Amino acid sequence: METNPATLVNGSFNGVISALDRGLAYGDGVFRTLKVVDGMPLHWPLHYQKLVADCGAIGIVCPSADAFMSDFNLLFLPDEPISVAKIMITRGEGERGYKPSPVALPMRVMVKAKLPAYPESHFDEGVHLRVCETLVSHQPKLAGVKHLNRLENVLARMEWSEPEIADGVMLDINGNVIECTAANLFARFDDVLVTPKLDLCGVEGVTRMQILSRATTLNLKMKIENIDLKRLLTADEVVMSNSLYGAWQVRSIEHQSTKTNWAKQTLANNIRKAIA
Amino acid sequence: METNPATLVNGSFNGVISALDRGLAYGDGVFRTLKVVDGMPLHWPLHYQKLVADCGAIGIVCPSADAFMSDFNLLFLPDEPISVAKIMITRGEGERGYKPSPVALPMRVMVKAKLPAYPESHFDEGVHLRVCETLVSHQPKLAGVKHLNRLENVLARMEWSEPEIADGVMLDINGNVIECTAANLFARFDDVLVTPKLDLCGVEGVTRMQILSRATTLNLKMKIENIDLKRLLTADEVVMSNSLYGAWQVRSIEHQSTKTNWAKQTLANNIRKAIA
Repeated sequence: METNPATLVNGSFNGVISALDRGLAYGDGVFRTLKVVDGMPLHWPLHYQKLVADCGAIGIVCPSADAFMSDFNLLFLPDEPISVAKIMITRGEGERGYKPSPVALPMRVMVKAKLPAYPESHFDEGVHLRVCETLVSHQPKLAGVKHLNRLENVLARMEWSEPEIADGVMLDINGNVIECTAANLFARFDDVLVTPKLDLCGVEGVTRMQILSRATTLNLKMKIENIDLKRLLTADEVVMSNSLYGAWQVRSIEHQSTKTNWAKQTLANNIRKAIA
Repeated sequence: METNPATLVNGSFNGVISALDRGLAYGDGVFRTLKVVDGMPLHWPLHYQKLVADCGAIGIVCPSADAFMSDFNLLFLPDEPISVAKIMITRGEGERGYKPSPVALPMRVMVKAKLPAYPESHFDEGVHLRVCETLVSHQPKLAGVKHLNRLENVLARMEWSEPEIADGVMLDINGNVIECTAANLFARFDDVLVTPKLDLCGVEGVTRMQILSRATTLNLKMKIENIDLKRLLTADEVVMSNSLYGAWQVRSIEHQSTKTNWAKQTLANNIRKAIA
């Protein structure tokens, strides 16, 4: 976040939240990160739909789409450079203890941040990944949900500091590939594009959903299934996706002392065009 | 929390934290809840030791014991009724993204709250529990740590609203008993007191550690091992523990449509005396 990002809390310019908020106490909330172009949030209907679904998964009533549109209008201007909106929704303040207060009002935060200065080569040439030691734990009740309990991602991201590693692949206890710390993963085998099943853990990103809906445009069959690391490393192409950069071609994955390489290919490029 | 609890943020009277704090963004921090009697935090050396250990587990440098003592002195007075201190430590503010900022300063919150109005019968007669559907997920890197990623406890606690149910037993995917949503569990079999192994998940409470160190006083052999629900239900006595009430005798556990009952016994009473 920049030193002084513009932040709205429940629609008011305000950089602070209550120290008694359950988002802080328990990670009791959800979030999203999305791109804002010319003052307009990109693919907003999909993001709002996902916010409603994620809130629903943990029993929070999602604020109205109008409330968010008003936030966007306050924070973002049409003539600004492309920027990022981070949205958090929590269950609000509560009494001490895990039981939610029946009268708690959800709290919504919108933060305006700069688009990260991604190297051009990530788009043109592709990126290098590593495999993280930190596993994603299984919790079917929270699988797919972008909630605020993200210590596993933090621990995984703390495993490396080399700037040439763009992200880390996270596995589950069964050795299945789940995602990157901040991206979903896709592996192409011939004309089939496979992305990991996220019924036990992981985050179903909006860009992942968009890609899955572009079978015709991409001329690929889409498949959601378990895929272990060994199989991922034999894919014809590997691509990672998120809402800020769209898709990047994965050119290598380091695991323990071995490194698997892929030639320069075009899938990430095609995906970026298909979901634009 | 009361309507206007006294709250210190980094030692200043202040009810708010930055909306960019990583404690909110990712649950990137740890916490403790303890009893304060005559202005003095009960068993503080143990709680501080646990704070340091938990911070260490996620790579946060724990603030000094002096900082907390100064907080206690500001918030609590010697002639006040027994009350509760909730302490949270987070990794502090950070840039957007999971990677911690190398310059982030940990943030510490201390909240003064009322001691819950526990029914006298919980101490005299014992309590009734249910078994939660929500499982505790396995994450060896976070096992034992009282971190701020507590959505599982929230979901588990949302499963019931009957006031006669004091807490819910949480199991793991293997059917092993881990803990209650806000307590550790002990089961006595003859002269052996068993408490669940917490190497894959769960929170190692300070009161649990105290009980484990009182083998001689309690005239019981202490054992830490896996214990499944079926075995728990055949225990001679079941006791739950936390830092606020010490220990309560478990008189019944409801699971699906069956209810296991225990007679009134004395272990919780003996434990409360032994750890006082």
